[in-house]
Amino acid sequence: MTRENSSGNVDLTLAESLFGQLDRATRRGGGIVRDSYGDGEQAAHDIVRSAAERLGLEVAIDAIGNLTMTLPGKDRHAPRILIGSHLDSVPQGGNFDGAAGVVAGICALATLRSSGFVPDYDIGVMAIRAEESSWFDVSYLGSEGAFGLLDPACLAVRRSDNGRTLGETLAARGFDPSAIAERRRLIEPRQIRAYLELHIEQGPRLVAEGLPAAVVTGIRGCKRFRTARCVGEYGHSGALPRALRHDAVAATVAFLHHMECVWSRVESEGADLLVTHGELYTDKAAHAPSKVAGETRFVIDLRSLSMEVMDCVASEARRAAEEIGRAYRVAFDLGAATDSPPAMMDARLRSCLMGLLDRPLEMPSGAGHDAAVFAELGIPAAMIFVRNDDGSHNPDEAMTLDDFAVGTRALIGMLRQFPL
Amino acid sequence: MTRENSSGNVDLTLAESLFGQLDRATRRGGGIVRDSYGDGEQAAHDIVRSAAERLGLEVAIDAIGNLTMTLPGKDRHAPRILIGSHLDSVPQGGNFDGAAGVVAGICALATLRSSGFVPDYDIGVMAIRAEESSWFDVSYLGSEGAFGLLDPACLAVRRSDNGRTLGETLAARGFDPSAIAERRRLIEPRQIRAYLELHIEQGPRLVAEGLPAAVVTGIRGCKRFRTARCVGEYGHSGALPRALRHDAVAATVAFLHHMECVWSRVESEGADLLVTHGELYTDKAAHAPSKVAGETRFVIDLRSLSMEVMDCVASEARRAAEEIGRAYRVAFDLGAATDSPPAMMDARLRSCLMGLLDRPLEMPSGAGHDAAVFAELGIPAAMIFVRNDDGSHNPDEAMTLDDFAVGTRALIGMLRQFPL
Repeated sequence: MTRENSSGNVDLTLAESLFGQLDRATRRGGGIVRDSYGDGEQAAHDIVRSAAERLGLEVAIDAIGNLTMTLPGKDRHAPRILIGSHLDSVPQGGNFDGAAGVVAGICALATLRSSGFVPDYDIGVMAIRAEESSWFDVSYLGSEGAFGLLDPACLAVRRSDNGRTLGETLAARGFDPSAIAERRRLIEPRQIRAYLELHIEQGPRLVAEGLPAAVVTGIRGCKRFRTARCVGEYGHSGALPRALRHDAVAATVAFLHHMECVWSRVESEGADLLVTHGELYTDKAAHAPSKVAGETRFVIDLRSLSMEVMDCVASEARRAAEEIGRAYRVAFDLGAATDSPPAMMDARLRSCLMGLLDRPLEMPSGAGHDAAVFAELGIPAAMIFVRNDDGSHNPDEAMTLDDFAVGTRALIGMLRQFPL
Repeated sequence: MTRENSSGNVDLTLAESLFGQLDRATRRGGGIVRDSYGDGEQAAHDIVRSAAERLGLEVAIDAIGNLTMTLPGKDRHAPRILIGSHLDSVPQGGNFDGAAGVVAGICALATLRSSGFVPDYDIGVMAIRAEESSWFDVSYLGSEGAFGLLDPACLAVRRSDNGRTLGETLAARGFDPSAIAERRRLIEPRQIRAYLELHIEQGPRLVAEGLPAAVVTGIRGCKRFRTARCVGEYGHSGALPRALRHDAVAATVAFLHHMECVWSRVESEGADLLVTHGELYTDKAAHAPSKVAGETRFVIDLRSLSMEVMDCVASEARRAAEEIGRAYRVAFDLGAATDSPPAMMDARLRSCLMGLLDRPLEMPSGAGHDAAVFAELGIPAAMIFVRNDDGSHNPDEAMTLDDFAVGTRALIGMLRQFPL
């Protein structure tokens, strides 16, 4: 097996020390608990901040707790480069989801500083707060809050475990809820030249491909029919001939089968698309082995780098539901769809990163990342995925330091090439 | 609209009076409650018995409460004809499921007697106990018990509502549980020349066909995979490319779609088959809109007049589950199948009945009936279905007296033609 010449000029001793400290400080039972704005996340911020101070980086904390550690550039007023990721985790998560990106940023700045490199403009590593929605049921609290994009109503959202509101939690931690209440911009988009994020891959593709790292093309959007339903009529499974049935399961199977055919067709045309029906069920209170089912409920979850592809598949779903509903004498009601738009990564940054990988591969990100918030504001953004076994959001996340070094080296390589 | 010359020589005043008494005595709230071996069923037995006594029929009650009302024939020792059906109902059932057959039998004997007809051999109307499984979770308690076919263990089965065992319930009603414990035969199959049963149709076919009655070809058997399962792997709906999924929903949809294709093919070859998946569900504790589903559970319910057809479809299901499981990288486990064999009605009796209907139609029965117990013992059996709107096992069962008369007239016609 060929392996990237991995350690290169990345300080893996620093990385290993930081990952070790994070693990020891925030492992609770089997998994990692870095609760958003809680003691776990704060412990991670403290560890990272101390490391930055030891490295001589400038340290700043904004009104809602985002921590930025800066290597000063020649022109302190020019738009800066930000390397970011989050330090919170899901409950019983793993040590690398989020933290790997912050540690990579610190290792990158350490490498640049120790080699005597002085960038043209500031390079900051931003340890972003509260990216996970598991604690407050709001995604991207830290990055959206930094840009004044949060709905102030979110201050009343309660933490899923202790019931305290976000407003109370921020104040208790010494931060300033009024920044969110007044939608204050804590950073100016035009003062950010580029946003770079390294993150473990949350799918199994790099493991399957046998590659240590990849460049992200974009963060898939999601169009979701959360409350789709098919209503037929219950009846006797032995006495109802097919032609007189209003069989919700048969109709739903026909519909979902059609959706798989649509997916195959769209995919064969080269478009990016994932179609998932993660929930599908008859009614436990009314179904029975000897009854034709009178109702099903299901979810249609569409993911794509293209909003147009998702819109197109969604309208085909509505058309097919009508037609199949008529054929099976049932009524589909797909319900309202919720949209989260895709966020494309910057073409120039992507191509620079591709040139820095020995075995370059580009792939979409299925999960959301803070990079999407920056990209949606028009800030050129790029992401590096690092191979990770056993999936994310669980205690078994498995990223090797060798793979981490491959991603971080690409990050450093890009920093040295600015302005692109 | 043409209507059968319905009243004919059937005493509809008697029928109307009996249905009215049954309804008044056993309607509880919106629906009929004639609980097996309970007060409701007993009230129905008392009503029917009094009517029989007024008509001068001989009345006998066996050790487990089956009531037989006999019009004596010329030869009292020759094998007799039995007209039967049950008098119990499901909880909140309708007035006609079961009772229509007993009332038809009494009306038939009343007609024969009042016309001075003396049959060659006895004709009995058997009001059978406890056909419904809703109360004791055992079907055909009365008819199987009469033939000594019940597993004595059923005496320990508890009534679903009051928790009393069948044994206790029988004893409290003055019947003799030892008949079941000792598997005593209370009637001899060879002493029964023919078993005839009139029953409301439990499906919508006669309503759809615009016909008042039909002759039953046979009672469909059932082969059921009650605990079928598909096991894949949960994963991120946005991050897992199709080729790396172990998607239990996608695989199950492909499998159930295949089963519908199999059904179409078998049906187009002229075989009798119904395929139903009345239960289908992902795991509420583990599924989510953003997760590829790692598990489904479902039921395969096959119904047919031919055991061979069901066996054949079941082995195709097992084969397809293997193949589709491999293609989708999941494992199907269809579990064990339970069989209830089909029971064909007697060809000679069927053809006689067909000749007695103005607009003859033959159709299978999807639901089970006591007639199946007699047929399985080799006793020539026949059934007449009477049109019934709104389905059965609910308070809205709707059979008209005109349609009842069409069915009963055919029954009387056949009784006059014996020996066939």
